[in-house]
Amino acid sequence: MVAMKYVIAMIRPERLDAVKRELQKIEVSRLTVSSVSGYGAQKGYMEIYRAMEYDANLLEKIKIEIAVNDEFLEPTIEAIKTGAKGSDGYVGSGKIFVLPLENVIRIRTNETGPEAI
Amino acid sequence: MVAMKYVIAMIRPERLDAVKRELQKIEVSRLTVSSVSGYGAQKGYMEIYRAMEYDANLLEKIKIEIAVNDEFLEPTIEAIKTGAKGSDGYVGSGKIFVLPLENVIRIRTNETGPEAI
Amino acid sequence: MVAMKYVIAMIRPERLDAVKRELQKIEVSRLTVSSVSGYGAQKGYMEIYRAMEYDANLLEKIKIEIAVNDEFLEPTIEAIKTGAKGSDGYVGSGKIFVLPLENVIRIRTNETGPEAI
Repeated sequence: MVAMKYVIAMIRPERLDAVKRELQKIEVSRLTVSSVSGYGAQKGYMEIYRAMEYDANLLEKIKIEIAVNDEFLEPTIEAIKTGAKGSDGYVGSGKIFVLPLENVIRIRTNETGPEAI
Repeated sequence: MVAMKYVIAMIRPERLDAVKRELQKIEVSRLTVSSVSGYGAQKGYMEIYRAMEYDANLLEKIKIEIAVNDEFLEPTIEAIKTGAKGSDGYVGSGKIFVLPLENVIRIRTNETGPEAI
Repeated sequence: MVAMKYVIAMIRPERLDAVKRELQKIEVSRLTVSSVSGYGAQKGYMEIYRAMEYDANLLEKIKIEIAVNDEFLEPTIEAIKTGAKGSDGYVGSGKIFVLPLENVIRIRTNETGPEAI
């Protein structure tokens, strides 16, 4: 069976539209999005802001989850990188994780495997 | 070691109770639930609604995550399908993803592997 | 290539700071955090609370996601267990799931694999 991958990307919230546009260019339009918080490389320092301690290195991120067939993996990674990086290339542009995906089932049609993606 | 799987399902929010009931029938009662947004098959079109552009193909979904031992995989998939599809079989009933799961650790008891599930 | 793992932990919200401190002790400071709801082992019972039916076994949890290189896996699991368990060892301290991770890409630098973690 064609290998499939589960792609997880953590990106800056303001880059979501750009990432979606890049993905649509390669016909990847099915994705799941959720809000998460990311702790960056800073070792963690607390700042007192108006006498209220808050965790200064907590960064709001958007998590994107996409199932792809193998031949779409590289184009998907490139599309996410292009959209997420933007022109500024700021620190904290995010990361992409590639996990093995054994099966996909489309609930309405009972299709399974690569066709279900 | 008995193989284990990490099952991720994206379903319509109104089907969560039905999915839970189906899972309880097969004694699967430990699951994690979170709110996500899904972009469907529509290639993405924007609608102007009261002069406010919004992304018409952003669908609220519920993400379910369940760890199962191999022999529970098929019954779990069937239970999710039965509960998520409902009688109407609408477009957007959702998808199920099956990922390999190497280990599970129950924090309180230090149990690991299939017993920890 | 050095094997990498995708670690998912579901813990009690009040234990997050303790888990972060334990992880920082072993120099693991990049993690993603999100709010989820967990259904525990109770088979599911409904309680009427002021004439409002609610799902008594829905527990607020924090989901932690961390990518680690193999040699960091055991220390990361131990750190999460120490932080999440606390002194009381209550029921519902949570679980840790270990999934295989094929690749990691750091968007800003294009680094891939173990260096990107």
